[in-house]
Amino acid sequence: MRAASVSDYRELARRRLPNIFFEYIDGGSYAEVTLRRNVEDLEAIALRQRVMRDMTQLDMSVQTLGQTLKMPVGLAPVGMAGMYGRRGETQAIRAATAAGVPFCLSTVGVCSIEEVAATGTPPWFQLYMLKDRGYMRELLARAKAAGCPVLVFTVDLPLPGSRYRDIRSGFTGSTPLKAAMTQALDGITHPGWTWDVFVNGRPHTLGSVQAAVKEGRRVTDFLAWIARNFDRSVTWKDIDWVRENWEGPIVVKGVLDVEDARDVVRAGAQGLVVSNHGGRQLDGVRSSISVLPAIADAVGGDLDVFMDGGVRSGLDVLKALALGAKACFVGRAWAWALGAGGQPAIERMLDTLRAELAVAMTLTGCNNARDAGRTLLDNG
Amino acid sequence: MRAASVSDYRELARRRLPNIFFEYIDGGSYAEVTLRRNVEDLEAIALRQRVMRDMTQLDMSVQTLGQTLKMPVGLAPVGMAGMYGRRGETQAIRAATAAGVPFCLSTVGVCSIEEVAATGTPPWFQLYMLKDRGYMRELLARAKAAGCPVLVFTVDLPLPGSRYRDIRSGFTGSTPLKAAMTQALDGITHPGWTWDVFVNGRPHTLGSVQAAVKEGRRVTDFLAWIARNFDRSVTWKDIDWVRENWEGPIVVKGVLDVEDARDVVRAGAQGLVVSNHGGRQLDGVRSSISVLPAIADAVGGDLDVFMDGGVRSGLDVLKALALGAKACFVGRAWAWALGAGGQPAIERMLDTLRAELAVAMTLTGCNNARDAGRTLLDNG
Amino acid sequence: MRAASVSDYRELARRRLPNIFFEYIDGGSYAEVTLRRNVEDLEAIALRQRVMRDMTQLDMSVQTLGQTLKMPVGLAPVGMAGMYGRRGETQAIRAATAAGVPFCLSTVGVCSIEEVAATGTPPWFQLYMLKDRGYMRELLARAKAAGCPVLVFTVDLPLPGSRYRDIRSGFTGSTPLKAAMTQALDGITHPGWTWDVFVNGRPHTLGSVQAAVKEGRRVTDFLAWIARNFDRSVTWKDIDWVRENWEGPIVVKGVLDVEDARDVVRAGAQGLVVSNHGGRQLDGVRSSISVLPAIADAVGGDLDVFMDGGVRSGLDVLKALALGAKACFVGRAWAWALGAGGQPAIERMLDTLRAELAVAMTLTGCNNARDAGRTLLDNG
Amino acid sequence: MRAASVSDYRELARRRLPNIFFEYIDGGSYAEVTLRRNVEDLEAIALRQRVMRDMTQLDMSVQTLGQTLKMPVGLAPVGMAGMYGRRGETQAIRAATAAGVPFCLSTVGVCSIEEVAATGTPPWFQLYMLKDRGYMRELLARAKAAGCPVLVFTVDLPLPGSRYRDIRSGFTGSTPLKAAMTQALDGITHPGWTWDVFVNGRPHTLGSVQAAVKEGRRVTDFLAWIARNFDRSVTWKDIDWVRENWEGPIVVKGVLDVEDARDVVRAGAQGLVVSNHGGRQLDGVRSSISVLPAIADAVGGDLDVFMDGGVRSGLDVLKALALGAKACFVGRAWAWALGAGGQPAIERMLDTLRAELAVAMTLTGCNNARDAGRTLLDNG
Ligand SMILES: Cc1cc2nc3c(=O)[nH]c(=O)nc-3n(C[C@H](O)[C@H](O)[C@H](O)COP(=O)(O)O)c2cc1C
Ligand SMILES: Cc1cc2nc3c(=O)[nH]c(=O)nc-3n(C[C@H](O)[C@H](O)[C@H](O)COP(=O)(O)O)c2cc1C
Ligand SMILES: Cc1cc2nc3c(=O)[nH]c(=O)nc-3n(C[C@H](O)[C@H](O)[C@H](O)COP(=O)(O)O)c2cc1C
Ligand SMILES: Cc1cc2nc3c(=O)[nH]c(=O)nc-3n(C[C@H](O)[C@H](O)[C@H](O)COP(=O)(O)O)c2cc1C
Repeated sequence: MRAASVSDYRELARRRLPNIFFEYIDGGSYAEVTLRRNVEDLEAIALRQRVMRDMTQLDMSVQTLGQTLKMPVGLAPVGMAGMYGRRGETQAIRAATAAGVPFCLSTVGVCSIEEVAATGTPPWFQLYMLKDRGYMRELLARAKAAGCPVLVFTVDLPLPGSRYRDIRSGFTGSTPLKAAMTQALDGITHPGWTWDVFVNGRPHTLGSVQAAVKEGRRVTDFLAWIARNFDRSVTWKDIDWVRENWEGPIVVKGVLDVEDARDVVRAGAQGLVVSNHGGRQLDGVRSSISVLPAIADAVGGDLDVFMDGGVRSGLDVLKALALGAKACFVGRAWAWALGAGGQPAIERMLDTLRAELAVAMTLTGCNNARDAGRTLLDNG
Repeated sequence: MRAASVSDYRELARRRLPNIFFEYIDGGSYAEVTLRRNVEDLEAIALRQRVMRDMTQLDMSVQTLGQTLKMPVGLAPVGMAGMYGRRGETQAIRAATAAGVPFCLSTVGVCSIEEVAATGTPPWFQLYMLKDRGYMRELLARAKAAGCPVLVFTVDLPLPGSRYRDIRSGFTGSTPLKAAMTQALDGITHPGWTWDVFVNGRPHTLGSVQAAVKEGRRVTDFLAWIARNFDRSVTWKDIDWVRENWEGPIVVKGVLDVEDARDVVRAGAQGLVVSNHGGRQLDGVRSSISVLPAIADAVGGDLDVFMDGGVRSGLDVLKALALGAKACFVGRAWAWALGAGGQPAIERMLDTLRAELAVAMTLTGCNNARDAGRTLLDNG
Repeated sequence: MRAASVSDYRELARRRLPNIFFEYIDGGSYAEVTLRRNVEDLEAIALRQRVMRDMTQLDMSVQTLGQTLKMPVGLAPVGMAGMYGRRGETQAIRAATAAGVPFCLSTVGVCSIEEVAATGTPPWFQLYMLKDRGYMRELLARAKAAGCPVLVFTVDLPLPGSRYRDIRSGFTGSTPLKAAMTQALDGITHPGWTWDVFVNGRPHTLGSVQAAVKEGRRVTDFLAWIARNFDRSVTWKDIDWVRENWEGPIVVKGVLDVEDARDVVRAGAQGLVVSNHGGRQLDGVRSSISVLPAIADAVGGDLDVFMDGGVRSGLDVLKALALGAKACFVGRAWAWALGAGGQPAIERMLDTLRAELAVAMTLTGCNNARDAGRTLLDNG
Repeated sequence: MRAASVSDYRELARRRLPNIFFEYIDGGSYAEVTLRRNVEDLEAIALRQRVMRDMTQLDMSVQTLGQTLKMPVGLAPVGMAGMYGRRGETQAIRAATAAGVPFCLSTVGVCSIEEVAATGTPPWFQLYMLKDRGYMRELLARAKAAGCPVLVFTVDLPLPGSRYRDIRSGFTGSTPLKAAMTQALDGITHPGWTWDVFVNGRPHTLGSVQAAVKEGRRVTDFLAWIARNFDRSVTWKDIDWVRENWEGPIVVKGVLDVEDARDVVRAGAQGLVVSNHGGRQLDGVRSSISVLPAIADAVGGDLDVFMDGGVRSGLDVLKALALGAKACFVGRAWAWALGAGGQPAIERMLDTLRAELAVAMTLTGCNNARDAGRTLLDNG
């Protein structure tokens, strides 16, 4: 199959990855209501077609946090990417850099901050608040040393939500690593993945936090570790603590409520991501795109508002921009592409987003991504 | 399959139980419109995610009718549970007690009041109004003697609704017991159930009412008996009669209308259950969750308002609380778990509800189940 | 399969009837949008459950056009019923009479007015306006002679709509009879039907109009004949002509619009049927139930308003009554039952409707069908 | 299968055509949201049934742009029709002429303007704005010389949208012709098509533009050529240029917005087609039928408003007329019929539309297509 769209990379990933990892990427929490809402609410938005405008000039670049993105898209933090492709995080940042867009490394990436930065581009770094503040300080210092330009602080995971698919597939913190891996290798044989990742993609540890995850140091131990080390007591005051240890811009990820958004401003962050963690945390919350406009209206003048969740095409990107986002992040889109074919597949996937965004801008008469606003939509 | 959710217990019960019983539990009346509405209307409600709140303290206990429930959940009265697991009602009350929640014994349980109370915990007792008032008086006396703390008086069954699935599967009052059992044993073999329930789970009578059901004394005779003995002439005045014979708290189960709810208050009951009998009586009525808010607004100050119908996760529990319920009852959830794996499965199912409720409270910023209100919901 | 519901008779008819006839009964015109709307709009209406009312008295009889119906249901005119069961119209009227409800004979019935009346009960007679007024006069005289109490004048068939299923199955006026019958007999063998209808159910002519249908005198010739003989020029004035030739009550069938309903009153009819011909004429019009309230409000004081279209249970009957209908007609429900098992099946189907209506009345607290009104519904 | 409806021709085309061409006709761009909206929004509109009106006179002809159409339908420009049937454009114009409706030849037809005009009827000619103005001038001169009465100027393709199905099937501009054809011939054998089109339907070039498409002169080269030669810089001013080179009426095709519609009037065109290119360009825009009323209200007095997109029956045609269209165009409907059975199938398809329109007019009481207005619809 020639991949024509993001959904095609999903299909290819389904074929290539061990089921346990495909389900982990693909699934959402509980009954996956929010996961579906993310996609369906974007789909329901109507673009407004305009014709006969001179569209020879088309500028899709945006400025944010001191950087220029060649298009208003970024790769969202995705845990354990090194299990979907050999040293997955390094492949992803190479593809992102080639496309002129940022890559955000997850706290629980397989590759460490240093390994990713060694590609020549320091990543944005995503941080979960951990109980061990000493370790936190160390992490921030490493991110700074590696030259990470932006810190993304994820706030919607004070405790892990429950993903039924992972429990069913046996992919939980309490599963011994060996059992999980055996399961991954069993069943349908996945020779491509086995050679690429299992044999040649080692070590399978969580690069940045391996020093903290004492008990097993292997990828599948991290969920048990999260359950114990994530910090339910964190409040806006802790942002002050983070700021003391980080000079660059801070983006708060996982905001769905206008009141929380106002608190983000108050806490002094430079950006926020309207996000429900891709429908992977509290199922039943609203889609990101449906709450975006109110949040952008409330705080868009004070900081940069991003969004993620359900973005599957360049058309979706334009819809998000029209509703107030500075740029979008994609999570599953790149994780699927990585699983489907590594860096080249992520590059092609980003090409597809760009081409789709070009069509969408051209036929809505939008010459400049920076000017995208609600007039690009047709509210009937 | 590892059961990750209530729906997984359903799937396991489908495999383990004779079809005739699975369909009896699973089905609703007529075209099952209300059954679907119960589930879909809960699903459509959006929780409001809040972040960065100190969630170290999380109290999900509630006080009601002189008891403390460790979480705001109870096991609804379900008829003939002893056919889904060996002496099913006793297994269920043990699981409920372990979890600190109440179990309500059905009038038409396989185990009698006395057998259930002999586990050490007297159950709440559910009563249908029967024509034979002498027998009624006797039943109430037995419940009192056994120490039942609460009487649940079910009012939405003046006559049985029609469940197409049961008619199709031959599970009706007019079917001779032998034929029904033969059918249960035939078809696909269900060795687990046969050994557990059919061989070792006897006697298969309706413990509490067997003295009244003269004609056959076996489980499947009860439907015919219901049709003859249930009382269409019962009105609010009959509650007075019940009160004369019962000193403890009375909960009226099966209320869907604000005017009826006001009558419950007038009749002097201590609680009511917003319920459509799990979509098993009058198909086409509204979902329980959709009528809950108006009823809670109208009478929530006068008595304790509970709800049941469609609750399939701890997220659903929080939604019901947010809309005014003191606590939720689950019917099919525990009947499926019982069929899937007896007491241990019910315990795990209750653990799952608790864990899900914890996530939901944490991510909506609700530290205390008693404070749950409409601000936990996002109405767009 | 034990038939529990109207939809079960459909399934049984599908198995027993030659495909060409099953599709003819089952189908609607064009994309079958209106057919679906009829059923779905009824389903979407919510009944309002009321409890604790003394329901020992339950009266479902209604008075209309000088008759008492034991329940508010009638058998709608259905063409060619004699092809779905041996002398089908006579079987149907016997079942209807046993249940105390009216049977309306179609202009294009297989059994003639006289053959049906010979059962002891003269049917209501449904008339299409034909071009040949001489023949019309003769028909009316025969209906009068046979003692038909009511004339139902169908006005929504000035020309036949197109039923894609019939064109696909070859069941059209232009098909030679032999080809159609061969097709009916071929394919899957239908031995029950063949013996019952094909061998023993003759003659296969349109009893009442065979004198007019010159060219072939067999059932399948009638569609071509309709196309030529139905009268597009008929207007309200023609009702005057009918009234001159008919002394009894006249019911106009096929009204969907308030303005047309007012014209029915002006034309002096005693009743009207809100109907879209079961979604078999102009696809895309609204469901009968959705237009019923406005029509009942406008003319319910002047004549008796009936409805048909999508009624599949006794619950649906109560919904229609609540929205202003005096009684409902069922078309497919009895045609399916006839195809499934002749008169006994129609009797059981009517029993089912009655039992369902009893549950619906009991649980909405409606003691008397004559009092059914909008308070029985819950509009949220 | 006897084709009863437009959707049946689709099914027949699926069987007869090589998959690559069937998908090309059938598909829409991206997730095909707009494609579905076109059909579903038409379906959701309710016609208003009226009865007892004298419908002996039924006039479905309309006057537009100096022509009389026997019914308010035209064949929309469809590229490469000569690949779906032998010299497909000539078959289509013969069918259209027989039915008294216009055929519009696509810029990228297989048959040239001259070959189509040689059937005796000069086609309407559809033009895309190309970069090479010299060639444009030549094309317009040829259209004039051939006697084309109307110029249709398509404005919604400043660049090609992305059709995932075509990318997946390999039908893109970058595919070498041989590979595409091999694919078309392979897989399932399509002997009818192979003989009719592949062997006897040559040459497979784009008749009207072959002089411009230098590189390959074969059908599948055109997409690559479009990508390079279509003109993103075209604005309303370019209409002036066109008008200098064309004296007859100009119709602007591809308008979805009221403001754009006003610009069409200002630019001096005689007509416009409300169209989203059949959901083949910018996915996510609204359906044609949903924007038609506002556009007809705004500019219907100044020029003739047509619509296309999702029209699948004569009922749809009447809905469009009721909402302000002078006439409808059908694209896939005739392309499917051509693929299914050539000119005779297109003729039968047009007969079906006419018969359906007759039923719709009769049962809405509309004697004259010119009078169709919003009173024919029922807005509930
Ligand atoms: C497999 C997977 C792992 C993820 N891991 C993280 C993570 O470690 N940190 C984080 O902040 N978000 C994580 N997310 C959430 C993403 O950053 C992002 O919010 C989400 O994927 C956006 O929705 P989308 O997948 O529909 O694009 C993860 C998402 C997925 C699918
Ligand atoms: C198999 C089954 C048997 C039931 N038997 C009784 C009963 O004997 N008495 C009663 O009051 N309710 C009975 N109910 C209704 C339940 O108490 C409860 O109202 C309903 O199951 C709640 O809906 P849920 O199943 O969606 O949780 C029964 C429900 C089921 C599923
Ligand atoms: C097979 C069939 C034949 C019918 N023939 C007639 C008829 O001859 N005359 C008539 O007035 N209505 C006829 N109708 C319409 C019915 O009288 C009635 O309006 C319709 O069936 C009601 O919808 P329902 O089938 O959903 O109950 C026919 C309906 C069906 C299904
Ligand atoms: C296979 C195909 C090819 C088309 N080619 C052209 C074309 O060359 N020029 C054009 O203006 N429109 C073209 N269209 C769009 C049609 O003219 C028309 O707008 C559309 O098909 C209407 O939607 P419908 O297919 O639902 O009727 C094409 C459509 C299809 C399906």
